[in-house]
Amino acid sequence: MQTSVDESVLIGRLREVVPGERLVTDPDLLGGFSRDEAEWAPAGRPLAVLRAQSTEEIAAAVRVCAQNRIPVVPRGAGTGLSGGANAVDGCLVIDVSRMNAVLEIDTDNLVAVVQPGVVNDDLKRAVAEHGLWYPPDPASAPWSTIGGNVSTNAGGLCCLKYGVTRDYVLGMEVVMGGPAGEYGRIVRIGRRTTKGVAGYDLTGLFVGSEGTFGIVTEITLKLRPAISEPPRTVVGAFASLVAAGEAIALVTRRGLQPAALELLDRECIRAVEEWKHLGIETEAAALLLARVDLPGEAGDAEASATAAAFTDAGALWAQQSTDEVEAEALFEARRLAYPALERLMPVLTEDVCVPRSAVPRMLAVIEEIAARHGVRIATIAHAGDGNLHPLLLTPPGDDDARIAAQAAFEDLLDAAIGLGGTVTGEHGVGLLKRSGMNKELDPGALAMQRAIKATLDPLGLFNPGKVIG
Amino acid sequence: MQTSVDESVLIGRLREVVPGERLVTDPDLLGGFSRDEAEWAPAGRPLAVLRAQSTEEIAAAVRVCAQNRIPVVPRGAGTGLSGGANAVDGCLVIDVSRMNAVLEIDTDNLVAVVQPGVVNDDLKRAVAEHGLWYPPDPASAPWSTIGGNVSTNAGGLCCLKYGVTRDYVLGMEVVMGGPAGEYGRIVRIGRRTTKGVAGYDLTGLFVGSEGTFGIVTEITLKLRPAISEPPRTVVGAFASLVAAGEAIALVTRRGLQPAALELLDRECIRAVEEWKHLGIETEAAALLLARVDLPGEAGDAEASATAAAFTDAGALWAQQSTDEVEAEALFEARRLAYPALERLMPVLTEDVCVPRSAVPRMLAVIEEIAARHGVRIATIAHAGDGNLHPLLLTPPGDDDARIAAQAAFEDLLDAAIGLGGTVTGEHGVGLLKRSGMNKELDPGALAMQRAIKATLDPLGLFNPGKVIG
Repeated sequence: MQTSVDESVLIGRLREVVPGERLVTDPDLLGGFSRDEAEWAPAGRPLAVLRAQSTEEIAAAVRVCAQNRIPVVPRGAGTGLSGGANAVDGCLVIDVSRMNAVLEIDTDNLVAVVQPGVVNDDLKRAVAEHGLWYPPDPASAPWSTIGGNVSTNAGGLCCLKYGVTRDYVLGMEVVMGGPAGEYGRIVRIGRRTTKGVAGYDLTGLFVGSEGTFGIVTEITLKLRPAISEPPRTVVGAFASLVAAGEAIALVTRRGLQPAALELLDRECIRAVEEWKHLGIETEAAALLLARVDLPGEAGDAEASATAAAFTDAGALWAQQSTDEVEAEALFEARRLAYPALERLMPVLTEDVCVPRSAVPRMLAVIEEIAARHGVRIATIAHAGDGNLHPLLLTPPGDDDARIAAQAAFEDLLDAAIGLGGTVTGEHGVGLLKRSGMNKELDPGALAMQRAIKATLDPLGLFNPGKVIG
Repeated sequence: MQTSVDESVLIGRLREVVPGERLVTDPDLLGGFSRDEAEWAPAGRPLAVLRAQSTEEIAAAVRVCAQNRIPVVPRGAGTGLSGGANAVDGCLVIDVSRMNAVLEIDTDNLVAVVQPGVVNDDLKRAVAEHGLWYPPDPASAPWSTIGGNVSTNAGGLCCLKYGVTRDYVLGMEVVMGGPAGEYGRIVRIGRRTTKGVAGYDLTGLFVGSEGTFGIVTEITLKLRPAISEPPRTVVGAFASLVAAGEAIALVTRRGLQPAALELLDRECIRAVEEWKHLGIETEAAALLLARVDLPGEAGDAEASATAAAFTDAGALWAQQSTDEVEAEALFEARRLAYPALERLMPVLTEDVCVPRSAVPRMLAVIEEIAARHGVRIATIAHAGDGNLHPLLLTPPGDDDARIAAQAAFEDLLDAAIGLGGTVTGEHGVGLLKRSGMNKELDPGALAMQRAIKATLDPLGLFNPGKVIG
């Protein structure tokens, strides 16, 4: 019983620095903190979970972890799709979901300061009361935290026009590791001003680093003025995925800039419709949904031009939705596609991103790979960005189907790389995209990444095994 | 004569790997490659200048430099204002200004691939022929190179609405140093897709690193569709700098988003007017120039609202310019302010950036510091961003005036930090802002920066002394 003796000693050391009720060690509870929503990503058994309530508490725990070589795995809402929040054996999971205060909304400077556990939609609501807007809108926005969004550099629907999480992070407070050998030191990086080039962009480096450099304990965000006019929604129905892909390429080529341009295939639409009965067309092979938010007549013109591009690319029909309820239902369907499919069976989620001109080809390849491996694939996509989410559906308990899905998963990554794309547009590398990333990146770039990780976390304690493996 | 023997040996080794006509060693010519436009920043004497024409040539030279511990200082057009391109004794200056090809304009994907020596305005013209736009527009755009813009993360006028250089850099080819100990290795970092999170953001880290990590030899840039409608220009004249500052704060607070919002003080206006006779008002203490580029009636509304904000903040007068020639003359005056003052006498350029609500206070502080030190200060500003350029004018040959200006320079940096700002918004740290940066940043952040530099350039050869000192 060597292991459990050691564990109790380590837990005792953690208890010395954090209040008892914050440290969860009950084996029945640990499981709920040991993984995110990535299917089939390996997860270990944590030593304990710190349900953190302050930066100081996290810093103290990280110091104990460094002294005792306990790995540290940070965690927000656990809605990740790449295994980035999965525990490793004997680690301390630091759950920041209770650190959920919006600390400041500076309306004069369009800045918010938040704790990492704030839920994305809660922040949106808080700033909306001041006529402001925090744009990044991953489909998980009702549940996912800003800390998690920052860790994965989350995108969403409106990043087509308004950018991803990195574009909104001005600065952070972090509990760092190296290089000073001072694990547990609390450091401010970045700035509060709109512009600034004093030193290297550590903030941008921490965004998307999936907790492998340190623990983000506070975030300074840039906001935008709210858009007062309701957006226009344009819908197009297509007889094939490839035709929908052609429409997306044409919208880009014509210089149109919708705020969102989303694709749902028949499989997704039907899954949502069966669940929610929103009254959506279920016969077309694919729907495209565009949201146009230019004001006034310019918005009307862009909506018409978008519908015309759909038609010119061969849509079965294309029209501007004149009914706000209907338009909202369509975007609701887009947001519900993932949970609607997950209701049916386990879903393995891809997140490839290809140059926009390659979207038609990538959609064709998805169909080829599905046929070749005999795997059911439903596709939703932030199509205007070239960011596609083929969802591999696998009957539970069917090992052959699981093996086929995993082979198809790897083939999809290879295909995206072959088309000049990337294995992950917005979900992060986590555990599931590590081999894909190694194929995608230049070996020299991988060497730089490993060196930076070794510099900022010389003990290798922060979220081990994620991103660089 | 130890030194010159050594130098001739080193030059011989460089000549073995680069064609003779590319390697400048004539002492009469070296001076022209030894510094940028920063006043009073120290500059050393280069061993030689490589007027590079290819990545391979740069890689070969960097290998020789690493073997012989020759420092490497990259250089574009030399328009920098912080000393970032200044030579150190015995270095190889790598001048990339001849690598000025636009390699690709991908109209389907809104991407351009360029060599680092392409001049900003030349790129703008090349993509405009395809109906596309590269937004970053430093005042040096007619001369400065994309490589230099990337090295300093250059801003400009329209970054208020459209972002800075970093927001447009998707990927790069670089000649790297460490960590593999492989100085001279050619590496691709970043991506070509709109989104992507495969690994740490090395591209963002290299942007703004002022050549201290390696030599950027190719850049993949994001473009935007061109804006077809001519913008509206709104002008306001103010009886005091502080009143102009109040107008800027009010524009932000009211959620207006002009594409540019620039300030010129009386000193700047008069210097331009004396030189170019553009017919601009020279009596007001300050002019504000706003450019509004929303289309149609929305643009009219935003222009009116901007003029109203100027009036409400106490403008002497404010109006939308109905004359395109007049409007262009105003922005031309803004661009010419720096050279117009430089004509008169040496100019020491500040680049502080403060939260927008602190602009009125910072403008008052500039006047206080000018009075206290008896220094003549003219101010131009990307005021909407809070990015102010107080220009310290110093009669040539007057040592007392120079010492007073340098004291005022440091006081301005301290004041900006005290108001929650940064010592450099867009010009870079180079040599002139190093002590200011050390005061501004958290010591833990400085330690991380030094550690990353030591990791990516373990021999300390790339642009030594810049940024982290």
